[in-house]
Amino acid sequence: MKDSRLKVWGYDWVPDFAKGQVRDFRVRWALIEASFAYEVDHVTMGTQGKPEHLARQPFGQVPVLEVDGTPMFESGAIVWRIAEQSDVLLPPGLDRYAALSWVFAALNSVEPLTGVVGTVQTFVEDREAAERVAPTLRAMAGKKLKRLAGALGDKDYLLGGTFCVADLMMASVLHGLDGLALIEDFPSLVAYRDRCLARPAYQKAMTDQIAEIESNAANYAK
Amino acid sequence: MKDSRLKVWGYDWVPDFAKGQVRDFRVRWALIEASFAYEVDHVTMGTQGKPEHLARQPFGQVPVLEVDGTPMFESGAIVWRIAEQSDVLLPPGLDRYAALSWVFAALNSVEPLTGVVGTVQTFVEDREAAERVAPTLRAMAGKKLKRLAGALGDKDYLLGGTFCVADLMMASVLHGLDGLALIEDFPSLVAYRDRCLARPAYQKAMTDQIAEIESNAANYAK
Repeated sequence: MKDSRLKVWGYDWVPDFAKGQVRDFRVRWALIEASFAYEVDHVTMGTQGKPEHLARQPFGQVPVLEVDGTPMFESGAIVWRIAEQSDVLLPPGLDRYAALSWVFAALNSVEPLTGVVGTVQTFVEDREAAERVAPTLRAMAGKKLKRLAGALGDKDYLLGGTFCVADLMMASVLHGLDGLALIEDFPSLVAYRDRCLARPAYQKAMTDQIAEIESNAANYAK
Repeated sequence: MKDSRLKVWGYDWVPDFAKGQVRDFRVRWALIEASFAYEVDHVTMGTQGKPEHLARQPFGQVPVLEVDGTPMFESGAIVWRIAEQSDVLLPPGLDRYAALSWVFAALNSVEPLTGVVGTVQTFVEDREAAERVAPTLRAMAGKKLKRLAGALGDKDYLLGGTFCVADLMMASVLHGLDGLALIEDFPSLVAYRDRCLARPAYQKAMTDQIAEIESNAANYAK
């Protein structure tokens, strides 16, 4: 993979509510941690559903990683593939399957239950009904985050003292809760998220992505 | 793994709404497809949150797979680990990373958006509000399923003519939509799901799980 030609696909622009949340930041972050060179290309807003893009990403979304011209999709799958070839993301001696468990946990146990809070908050136009269902959904998300805080305990990272791919994915998911006032009840999770997001690789991934999106904003001015 | 001692943890009992949906069926299904012998143990209802179980599964859920006494969690991670050692779940010559993309897609692109429909329907007590938010959530789930149907096209399985781990996971997720009237708009997905669930390994996994749960029902009679 280090010697492959790698291309990450993101969006050329997104509305404000999605800024900083487009999932290709996870792939960029992993590639930078692994010290793999890559290029970036952008799906033009409005062309996500065209056959050309659906051939890369069947749901018309991003990210896509092309490896020597062959595309693969889903941030979890892509990041795991990168991790398999990176001593930073899967340090020698680490329990590989414990890391894999936590990658799936981030995406299938934490993100769905917390994500539903954001989905209802962002996409349901009937605001009064949305606010009435929110407490149940927030309580379910809170229980999940409480268990996550319990599992983290007083460790710096999920598997102990060393950052790995599990933390990249979990911190990415926790970053997705910005503005939902869910994680703030758990100071150890806030500190954990901030510890992970302080890494230079994350900072560069996010800075690059936002700069590209902002550079195209004039094309989408209302 | 074939020579390891394998133990799957499920629940000893669940309420009716969860019957047939407890995620250890995915692990059993994969183990039977792979022809790996395993034993089953059960978390007793009410003890999910005890330290003894949280040490196995940090969210107090199932499944857990113990491999020679070492537990791992998350159905996606466990099933992928089994698949890595099974020619049935990852047939030789198959694009391993395409399969991994679809496993994550099932759990992170399809299940969350369809699952939120079920979450709101099952857990929100304010029924009137729940019914008012449902159309937005159902429309979002429908768009995702439409893309899935598009990606499947007229193939028998996601990666072509051969069943693999991607289909096990996607069909498991589609099975989870029973009773939500979401998939029925897409006859090719119904046929695909039924084709996968007709496999003897699924049938045995489900029959075993339900028989165990029913055998304990008397302990939980109201």
